[in-house]
Amino acid sequence: MEIRFSLFYEHQLPRPWSEGQELRLYQDALDQVEIADRVGFDYVWEVEHHFLEEYSHSSAPEVFLAAASQRTKRIRLGHGIVQLPPAVNHPARIAERIATLDLVSNGRVDLGTGESSSSAELGGFGVRRTEKRDQWQDAIDAITRMFVEEPFAGWSSKYVQMPPRNVLPKTVQKPHPPLWVACSRRETIQFAARNGIGALSFSFVEPEDAGKWVDEYYRIIESDECVPAGFAVNPNVTVVLPMMLHEDEATAIDRGIDGAHFFAFALAHYYGPTPHDPGRTNVWEEFQERRNAKGFSREQIIANAETLRVNVGSLRGAVGTPQQVIDLIRRYESVGVDQIAFVLQSGPNKHEHICESLELFGRAVLPHFTEGRDEREAAKAERLAPAVEAALARRAPARTAPPGYRIDEDAEVARVDRARRPLREDIRAAGRRRFRQGFYRLVHGRTDEQIERRFGPSAQRLFFAGMARAYDPSAAGGFTGELEFRLTRTTWTLVIGESRARARPGPAGDPSLTLIVKTADFLRILAGDANPATLLMDGRLELRGDYEMAPRLSEMFGGPSPY
Amino acid sequence: MEIRFSLFYEHQLPRPWSEGQELRLYQDALDQVEIADRVGFDYVWEVEHHFLEEYSHSSAPEVFLAAASQRTKRIRLGHGIVQLPPAVNHPARIAERIATLDLVSNGRVDLGTGESSSSAELGGFGVRRTEKRDQWQDAIDAITRMFVEEPFAGWSSKYVQMPPRNVLPKTVQKPHPPLWVACSRRETIQFAARNGIGALSFSFVEPEDAGKWVDEYYRIIESDECVPAGFAVNPNVTVVLPMMLHEDEATAIDRGIDGAHFFAFALAHYYGPTPHDPGRTNVWEEFQERRNAKGFSREQIIANAETLRVNVGSLRGAVGTPQQVIDLIRRYESVGVDQIAFVLQSGPNKHEHICESLELFGRAVLPHFTEGRDEREAAKAERLAPAVEAALARRAPARTAPPGYRIDEDAEVARVDRARRPLREDIRAAGRRRFRQGFYRLVHGRTDEQIERRFGPSAQRLFFAGMARAYDPSAAGGFTGELEFRLTRTTWTLVIGESRARARPGPAGDPSLTLIVKTADFLRILAGDANPATLLMDGRLELRGDYEMAPRLSEMFGGPSPY
Repeated sequence: MEIRFSLFYEHQLPRPWSEGQELRLYQDALDQVEIADRVGFDYVWEVEHHFLEEYSHSSAPEVFLAAASQRTKRIRLGHGIVQLPPAVNHPARIAERIATLDLVSNGRVDLGTGESSSSAELGGFGVRRTEKRDQWQDAIDAITRMFVEEPFAGWSSKYVQMPPRNVLPKTVQKPHPPLWVACSRRETIQFAARNGIGALSFSFVEPEDAGKWVDEYYRIIESDECVPAGFAVNPNVTVVLPMMLHEDEATAIDRGIDGAHFFAFALAHYYGPTPHDPGRTNVWEEFQERRNAKGFSREQIIANAETLRVNVGSLRGAVGTPQQVIDLIRRYESVGVDQIAFVLQSGPNKHEHICESLELFGRAVLPHFTEGRDEREAAKAERLAPAVEAALARRAPARTAPPGYRIDEDAEVARVDRARRPLREDIRAAGRRRFRQGFYRLVHGRTDEQIERRFGPSAQRLFFAGMARAYDPSAAGGFTGELEFRLTRTTWTLVIGESRARARPGPAGDPSLTLIVKTADFLRILAGDANPATLLMDGRLELRGDYEMAPRLSEMFGGPSPY
Repeated sequence: MEIRFSLFYEHQLPRPWSEGQELRLYQDALDQVEIADRVGFDYVWEVEHHFLEEYSHSSAPEVFLAAASQRTKRIRLGHGIVQLPPAVNHPARIAERIATLDLVSNGRVDLGTGESSSSAELGGFGVRRTEKRDQWQDAIDAITRMFVEEPFAGWSSKYVQMPPRNVLPKTVQKPHPPLWVACSRRETIQFAARNGIGALSFSFVEPEDAGKWVDEYYRIIESDECVPAGFAVNPNVTVVLPMMLHEDEATAIDRGIDGAHFFAFALAHYYGPTPHDPGRTNVWEEFQERRNAKGFSREQIIANAETLRVNVGSLRGAVGTPQQVIDLIRRYESVGVDQIAFVLQSGPNKHEHICESLELFGRAVLPHFTEGRDEREAAKAERLAPAVEAALARRAPARTAPPGYRIDEDAEVARVDRARRPLREDIRAAGRRRFRQGFYRLVHGRTDEQIERRFGPSAQRLFFAGMARAYDPSAAGGFTGELEFRLTRTTWTLVIGESRARARPGPAGDPSLTLIVKTADFLRILAGDANPATLLMDGRLELRGDYEMAPRLSEMFGGPSPY
């Protein structure tokens, strides 16, 4: 097995903040990366996070990594990760930045990608959580095509509209830099494999569990399930661990454990339900108050432990002596992990301790893993070559735009406008919403008598005709038959045919479902002022016949619009 | 007067392209910036352009400038310019990148801004030309608040929705880096002054014209008209010139004139009506074929000219000997220009010639302008201080968000969704559009008789009632009175009150305006199938009374919607 080593940056800055601290943080990080490059680290990864005060002041990794490119010669520069939802980063801007970084670094970029998943970020940019996976898949397809298509043949999806353009500059690495995706659990590791890209696992995982993930990952990579997201396959699994190194174990713990624990605590703060008041919440203070209660007590960390445990709670990672860390790495190596990304800059960890650790790692740990590594990697590539080739054949190829296209600003902007313009369904939904709001005001707080007085025969006719018109056969699951509504003084029937419905007054001949309910309560349900489930339990709504259909009713009629 | 000198980059790459050329282009530029820093240039500016093949491969200046920050010590790093339309760059991403660049460069950033204006870019990102100025004004307000507000108190405009967040990191320079805006003509220079920010003039302008612009710029800066866009005023005017320097004038021309001419030709290509086929159009080839016809002939450039002319056509700029360039700079200096940005890398200009020019400039030109410059700048700042202070007092201050806000992803995303959702007006407009389309199909290609047969009394009642309902008093300019429509067999009157209109059949008692037109032609006008102006000229539409009102009719009734 072969294994690579990297540095991983969140640019953490616990409160209280003082002037010049962010400057120090960034300048120190550049110095650290320079050392890492010199002593033989293979990668430096930097996250892209927005608004995550204290946990990550790393909101523009494209800038930091570009600066790092001129302080280093050999180390690869990894985005870990770029957020792909187009509301955060336009796909063309991502392709442009990656290519430019590849040019200034002479081909040293790795493109890690992700969906963004903290509430601070999704809420901040207005990204729907239910859509972010789709957006990722859409954007990575567009971005990788921008790398290889010349010109990019254009894009028209739910999320991105773009006419044909030659996206410039192009990357140094061909067809494009290696791709990765952020993973946090088994399911996303499989997702990475299905997309034929590297898995950047950000959860602290024990070697034994990592081994299971790795096996599954490579099984999928070599299977038909792998349909590459890009135009090259990057079969690699990286895990992330905290690190602090010293020949004396107690010193290593003293220097590194608060950082490791703060990292995990602040992660849970931003990705869990803990409330956050921007600019005010003091995460470091909360950490100090609650670390013991949350399982991050300093006392549980005992020097001379036989093996290092990495899981959250006892989170220790690679905080220890060179020999302990060598042993830990061996365990990851033996289960087939391809890369370990070490977090040294976290919480209150000190710059000089980080530098010492890096030097010590280069001197006392790294040499144990470098011999024959290139050959083993070459052998791995050779072994996987047929699977990679087969996988790439499954990916939709680069397109060749027909020549003769002409840039046409007015037509192109109009196309984007059309895509942004409300669809017919949106217009209908807006109409329904407005209707329902007005209707709600009409029934809310009224007595049964007041409501029923307004709902005479002609209004009832209008309502049921509206329901019939709003009937959506696709939601009916093939149902045909009669629905009967027995109201206070009248009964209506909706006759459901294969593709349409019609309303008629009077009882049904053979109703599939009968609703017995006071007119006022029926209107309250339609207006959203009463919950049918509650009415059922209170005995104010009675159902007879095919009960199973009842929950489908709302969908079938797309709301009670008379439009 | 004091004057500063800068380098200006588009990263041009004329076709034909060969492998490794973009890499060379970027690596050479980094070398050049390193020299410029060493010999005493004050700024390096880099554009942000997208998809402008050959003319500018500089699509991610944030990356190039960050790389340059680690190759230099003193030179300022200027975005010239960042495109502010939110479809290109989200305001928070701009604030984050600028702050990060300020951190890695230890406070050396200048933030040049612009609206983006080539069809390739506006069409590529779907930015409406009519809105880009508004978007600029909206975005710069949001961005500068992100720099100074802690937390940023949120944003809700036509273009950007964002909940309160602490945008991180913060800039080194306080309150934020100096602001500039791209200008191309007198009107935009005034615009820069009204916004209290530096003017980056990208048109090649003679010193005498520049002088007029400068005078007007400073007059506005010191007047009540100046309401700063940011939280600091940056009173500076920069002009851009091509440059190539050599002790032998003919050599300088030989080395630099093709680059200068290609720059101007390609600029005209992308900003004019010339068609462009992405990935195919060969701008360099077109330049060679058409440079003479476009006034860019090499022959017109005569060595030993008494003064250098800079305008397009004879475009020469600072291509010449050190003494010629010193004389030219003196002319700009004497009219009060604060900075000259030199373009050396353009068209086919060679790296080694650029490096030679930079060294020569540092040796033979720069020393003539540095003595006492700091003192003169301090005096200028002192002279302008009261005006700057007064201007800043006119700017809406930074906000303090009330504490107790809680990040709430669902509610925040829903707010963005609501903002993205069609407004009531959009829904109405969509309804009108659909109506008009259907209506158009109904009248298009029909005879008068066919049309009038469909437009009986009840349809007429519906139409005029619809017009009355669609009446928009805000478009009527306070008009009240009667509008009379004499159609083929019937006459209708719209009675316009202060806030609403109503329709009634029959002639008006005292019409302000009477339209006499066949029913069929009236319907053709409403359907967009006939032009009222044409009908007027053909005598098929007659107007009596207050003619002036006629052009306002369409607006007043927001189209002929019966909704």
